[in-house]
Order: sequence, then structure tokens, then C-alpha cells
Amino acid sequence: MNILSPIEYEDAGPEVRAVYDEIRAVRKTAAINNFWKTLAHDPVLLQLKWKAVRTAMAPGRLDALTKELVYMAVGVSHGNDYALRTHLAAARAKGLTDAMYAEFIAVVQLAAGNVALINGLGIELDAHLKPGALTNDTAASTPGENTHEHT
Amino acid sequence: MNILSPIEYEDAGPEVRAVYDEIRAVRKTAAINNFWKTLAHDPVLLQLKWKAVRTAMAPGRLDALTKELVYMAVGVSHGNDYALRTHLAAARAKGLTDAMYAEFIAVVQLAAGNVALINGLGIELDAHLKPGALTNDTAASTPGENTHEHT
Amino acid sequence: MNILSPIEYEDAGPEVRAVYDEIRAVRKTAAINNFWKTLAHDPVLLQLKWKAVRTAMAPGRLDALTKELVYMAVGVSHGNDYALRTHLAAARAKGLTDAMYAEFIAVVQLAAGNVALINGLGIELDAHLKPGALTNDTAASTPGENTHEHT
Amino acid sequence: MNILSPIEYEDAGPEVRAVYDEIRAVRKTAAINNFWKTLAHDPVLLQLKWKAVRTAMAPGRLDALTKELVYMAVGVSHGNDYALRTHLAAARAKGLTDAMYAEFIAVVQLAAGNVALINGLGIELDAHLKPGALTNDTAASTPGENTHEHT
Amino acid sequence: MNILSPIEYEDAGPEVRAVYDEIRAVRKTAAINNFWKTLAHDPVLLQLKWKAVRTAMAPGRLDALTKELVYMAVGVSHGNDYALRTHLAAARAKGLTDAMYAEFIAVVQLAAGNVALINGLGIELDAHLKPGALTNDTAASTPGENTHEHT
Amino acid sequence: MNILSPIEYEDAGPEVRAVYDEIRAVRKTAAINNFWKTLAHDPVLLQLKWKAVRTAMAPGRLDALTKELVYMAVGVSHGNDYALRTHLAAARAKGLTDAMYAEFIAVVQLAAGNVALINGLGIELDAHLKPGALTNDTAASTPGENTHEHT
Repeated sequence: MNILSPIEYEDAGPEVRAVYDEIRAVRKTAAINNFWKTLAHDPVLLQLKWKAVRTAMAPGRLDALTKELVYMAVGVSHGNDYALRTHLAAARAKGLTDAMYAEFIAVVQLAAGNVALINGLGIELDAHLKPGALTNDTAASTPGENTHEHT
Repeated sequence: MNILSPIEYEDAGPEVRAVYDEIRAVRKTAAINNFWKTLAHDPVLLQLKWKAVRTAMAPGRLDALTKELVYMAVGVSHGNDYALRTHLAAARAKGLTDAMYAEFIAVVQLAAGNVALINGLGIELDAHLKPGALTNDTAASTPGENTHEHT
Repeated sequence: MNILSPIEYEDAGPEVRAVYDEIRAVRKTAAINNFWKTLAHDPVLLQLKWKAVRTAMAPGRLDALTKELVYMAVGVSHGNDYALRTHLAAARAKGLTDAMYAEFIAVVQLAAGNVALINGLGIELDAHLKPGALTNDTAASTPGENTHEHT
Repeated sequence: MNILSPIEYEDAGPEVRAVYDEIRAVRKTAAINNFWKTLAHDPVLLQLKWKAVRTAMAPGRLDALTKELVYMAVGVSHGNDYALRTHLAAARAKGLTDAMYAEFIAVVQLAAGNVALINGLGIELDAHLKPGALTNDTAASTPGENTHEHT
Repeated sequence: MNILSPIEYEDAGPEVRAVYDEIRAVRKTAAINNFWKTLAHDPVLLQLKWKAVRTAMAPGRLDALTKELVYMAVGVSHGNDYALRTHLAAARAKGLTDAMYAEFIAVVQLAAGNVALINGLGIELDAHLKPGALTNDTAASTPGENTHEHT
Repeated sequence: MNILSPIEYEDAGPEVRAVYDEIRAVRKTAAINNFWKTLAHDPVLLQLKWKAVRTAMAPGRLDALTKELVYMAVGVSHGNDYALRTHLAAARAKGLTDAMYAEFIAVVQLAAGNVALINGLGIELDAHLKPGALTNDTAASTPGENTHEHT
């Protein structure tokens, strides 16, 4: 039910082909997802988005699987099946098991319920969590130390 | 701007005090967040939610910091500042730095933009990602192998 | 932080004043909420919205308090504090107690968590709940009878 | 298109079977919804969620049908068809008619439109609705009395 | 998968038929969308909604195509395919091309990503954008002049 | 209540300063919004986002004011005040009046209510709007012609 039809390699101009070639090289597969083939209607957006994906999803201070989980949490929160399933495939390729996924979804559903609780109860931010207390300078929290913290 | 007023330890019944005591013991702090003090209006919900938080957020197959990031991704997706800031404090206590947080937010914003793209372009799920291909049995994807995958 | 400034009775044209008069008569108070005073920038929308509110919120097959709870559930789901607090005031005037509100919020947070679970697990609609089974004609469910039903 | 496959009674361990048995006993039906069968991948979450559903949806100070309507309002607000249809079936079993449902949906759509209006106009909370005025102590609103109240 | 079945002209009462007749006359087609046929379960809501659509979507200070784009942006933001596709058809009938649609979706996805960024970074409103500065009186911005402004 | 503190020009590295300089040149103002100053924690994201904003918001087949309205519609849909107010300022600088804004908000609130109606009534896509009928090739709709179209 695509609104704009996917553009195949054969029908693409050189700018689009260049991105397709890079996707194929990086991902070591000939397949290009519908996401990219549909974005190709706007070559500049295609390039920017591909660069953004490569930059944001690459392992850095957070590892690649953690990033996939964060991405999927956003997909689930918006009820977006495509975002979830494409990155679930990526996460599985990076080692995500069903048991890990079950833990992930337990956190996501907890957070979603808590968001509703917080909204519905109009809960005020605790004094010790007010901005001043959150900067790295003032927090001076020793990693691992179990301090007064979440919800 | 709490809708139901937080219930202090002194004013709480024994069921609520038992949960407060446990929170204090586990978190090694006398402070109890407004979230819990407001939930205390419904002692059964308080107990269930505390058990759910302890269970879901504890390190398991996913480590505790990854779980905090997943939780925060849901908070950000719903624009819920309290959920974000309480768990950001917890994440910082577990070692999250500003640089890691910047990477986190880069993924969240990428995913949120992609959700809109997917919705707006009505992108169909690629044939190779259709359910049959996603079960662990059929996927047979070798972790680490870079296969045709995300977005 | 109003974007369009509220229009006071003194500054309003006859169309707007007519609605204000009706609001005051129906609600037996001189006060007009900022919601209406801001809508007054578009007199046609003001009239339509007032008629829609009067029609939709009036007791009918559902009583007025139930309707307030439904309204508030939407407000909480969207994290909209104004929608929640204005109708919470209305609900309290109709008999809502803190204990009832705690039950309400327990349902809202349950549903919100379940929505995330359903999205995250990609749960398929059960065969016995597929559309054909949902029309009143085919359901033939005896009210009160406890059948296989929810989540 | 389930992501984790539903676990049938025959394939379930004793903890999961115990919950399934209870669901069957309470609901007086052999059928177990996909929701529960999928949750069964995480037996602790299954138990907690089943307890939460039983607790939250049971008639209390709010009757069971009102609770179903509140639940459905959240489902609709998130565009979650499964949450809506499962609880619609439950609500119909509890006496909800098409005419009542039409009234319900009129309130939901009104609230959703108003949420957008409030967001778009940046409407400030009216002074007489500010927190101090909302506690039961200060409100002193006589139930049934028609005071200055909603939107 | 309609929950309430669409009501055809032949089965409709006079109030509903009057709206159907008007829709047909205004839109110069015999076809009535499922949206209207389903709303017909509540004739008052049908009338109000039809009046609201005619009023809001008619060309005024904003032209009709711009209004369709605004409507679609809301549909995409909520992931509502029906809202998007019905108004996309209307927009195409008013001259929207694929190239224009690609520009539209580029803005929508940018905004959605920025919303997540703003939520995740807790960005404070800049002093020069605080309410006082936004009223038309104080802004005194000359249209076209490129001032310090967005994001 | 910024989570990461804004980075001032004086404290920024050369990559960040280059973007700040460009923002100042394009917008003809020394002021840099908090949005950009906070993004500066991730210079690559800052560059990409600035390029995306410049590309997406520039007049093209859609004019700049229409793009601002689309952007704001997303902001309102997500209840994001910062996104709304920054682009409202930009829109006012481009000629948006209060009366135009009132028309805009009337469309946004209509669409938001309709989204809830569509979700709640489970309205099926009309046969004449099914994908095949939406491609530019098959639609062959003459711009301006008033065909069977929206909602």
C-alpha cells in the first residue's frame, strides 16, 4: 500500500544509485529495503537519511545492539510496525534472542504504563531531580553506586 | 501540581509502609520519589508496580543501563519529562555520560523521524521481513553477520 | 502562555457573547474558561465546539460521569494536562472521589502498558474476535454472561 | 504477524499453565487470547499482568462496564485496534450496545479534537482550576451541583 | 473491519439522507465515503462533523490545498492511514503532485525528529520567543524579513 | 530545564562555530536558538540537522509558509510547545496572521478528532481509495475538478 512507488535500481538516477550501491556494500546484500526505495523520490533526503542512519546506528559509546533496542522502543511507542520489524531483524542479526526481546518488551510496557500514571496523577518532579541536580558537574554520582533515583 | 497528594511515610498504612521500606532498602536512600508516594493511594497498584519495576529493570539478559535507555526512549517518545528525568538520574548513577546520552538521543530522533516517513509514505513491509522470516527458527541469522536488515 | 489571547466578554462581538451567555446559563456561573475565550477568535468554531460539547457530554445512554471519565482517559493518553484538569473538576462536581479516580487511573495505566505490549509483540487479533464476530447481530452475547473476551 | 509465537497450553510450563487455568476458570471459557499466549514467553510478566488486569478491571467504586470504556478510550487514543476490539467484546458481553458505543466515540473524538485545540492555542490553566482548587479538601463541590467546570 | 456497519442511503433516515444529499451535491459524486456512512449511527454527530469539515476545509485565508496538507500532517503524526489517504486523494484532486508530496513528507519527518530531540534534550524556550514576544503587537515582524526564528 | 546545557559560541569548537556562523548569516541575526546550542553536543548531528532544516524548509514546490504550517501541525499533534512556538515565530515573520492561525488550528483539531473517530469506528478504506487508485498514473485527476474524495 505504498503511497509513492518504490524506485528500483534500474529506474534510478546516478545520485540514487550511488546511495543504493553504498547500502549494498555496507550491508553486504543486494536487497534494498522499500524504505530506501521510496525515499528515493527525494534524492537529497535519501542521502541525508542514509548518512544519519549510518552515523547514528554505528557502534560508538553505545554498542550497536543497544542502539537497535532504543530504536525499536521508539517504533513500539508509536505503534509503527515497519520500524519495529526492520530493526528487529537487524537486532537479531546482532545477537538479540527471543528471551532478550521479552525483557525489552517488559521494560517498554512498564514505561508506557508509567507514562500514563504520571500524566494521570500529575506527578511533580522531585526536588532532588530538578535540573540543577542533573548536570554531570553536580551529580557527581559514582557509577554503580545505588542512589535514590528512578520513579 | 499533583492531582492526588503524595502520601508521606508517617501517614501511610502498613501495606504502603512495607513497600516504602523495601524501596529504601533496595535503593539505599531514605528518599521516596513522588511517583511512589502518589501511587500509594492504591496500595495494591503500588505493590504490583513496585514488583513490576524491580522485575523489569533488574539486570537480566539485558544489562541495567540498557534497560534504562529503553525506558527513557519510551519516555521521550511520549514527551513525558518525569519518566525521562527520573530514569536519566538512574542511568547516570549507572554510568551514563553526556556523550552516551547524545548518542542515545540521536537514535531516538532518527527513529521518530523515520516513523513519520514510514507513515507518510505508506511503506509496505519488505517480503524478506514478513513474519515467517522473523522467527528465530527460520532466521538462522548468525549474530554479527551483516545481513540485509534495517530500514 | 496562550498563543492567541483570550477574548473577554466586554471585547466580544454578538455571536461570541451569545455563546458566552449560554455557557454561563448552562453552567450557572459567571466564569468562562480560557478554552472558550481563546476559541472565540473563530466564532463559527466556538459555536460548533460548544454545540458538540453540550451534545456529547450530556447524559444519554451513558451517564455524565462516565462520559467525563472517557474524556479524561483521552486527555491522559495524550498527556494533555488542561483537558484532564478541566474535566476532572467537572467530574468531581458530578461525584468523582479520589478513590474512584485511583481506580480510573489504574485502568488507564494498564491499558497504556497493554497497548505497548500489543505493539511490541505484534499480537494478532484472535479468530473469535474478527469483525464478523463483533457485530451485535452475530455476537448474541447475553449481557452479564462472562464469556471469553478481553485481552 | 505475531513477533513471538503464542504458546499453547500443551507447550507451556507449570507456571504458565496455572495462569491459563485461572483465566479459563474466571472467564468460563476454554479459549485463551493471543495476548496471554504471547505474554507467556515471560511467565513473571504474565502473572503480574494477569493480576493487574483482574485487579484493575474488576468492579469496585467504578463498575466493570465503565472500566471497559475507559480502557477502550486509551486503546482508541493510541490507535491500537487489538486493545479496542478485545475490550469491545468484553464491553458488549457486559451490556454495551451500538447506541452506547456511538455516544462513547462521540466523547472520544471530541476530547481528541480539544486536545489539539489546547495544544495549538497554548491555553493556560484557568486560575480557579489551579492545583490548590482541585484537592478534595478545598473543592468542596457538592456532587450534582452544576459549577463552573469543564473546558 | 468496521466496528459499526456503514449505513447505506437506502437504510438511512431523513436526517442522515439530508447530509448524504449535501455531500453528493458539494462533491459532485454519488459516492459517500465509509467515514460518513459509519458516522450516520449518530445523526447529530454526522451533521456537526459535516458542518465542521465544510467550514474548516473550505478555502479562506488559507487555500484549500494548504489545509489538506495540514490535515494530512496530523494524520501522519497519528499514524492514521485512513485520514492520510482520504485527504491525499482530495489534495491530488486539488493539484498535489508526487514531487510536492515528497517535500511535504520531508517537512513532516523533520518535525517529528525534532520533536523527539526537543523532548529528549529538554530544550527550554528561548527568551526571545517567550509569550510576550509572540503576540502580533510586539512581534512587529515584517513579513518576508528573515529574522531569528525557527528551531 | 535543559538536560544538556547549551553550548555558547565562545565555548564551541570550529565545526560547531561553522554551523553557528551559517545560521547567523542565513537568518541575519546574532541569536542562535537553544535548539542548535544544545544539539552542539553532537557536532555531526548538528551539521546534518542544520542541512536537513535548510533543505526541507526552503521554498520549493511548496512555499515556505505552507511548510511552516505543516511543521507546526506535527508539533501540535505531539503536544510539543517548543516546536510549535519556534516555527510560529518563523511563520509570523513570513506573514502568518492570527486569523490565518485560527483557520490552521481549526483544521488541526478537526483532523485530530477525525483520527479518533476513524480509530474508534474501525473505518475501512473505501474501495475507490485503495492503493491502485492512488498512484498518479491511474488517478488522472484533473486538478480543480471536484471528485469524490475526502473523509
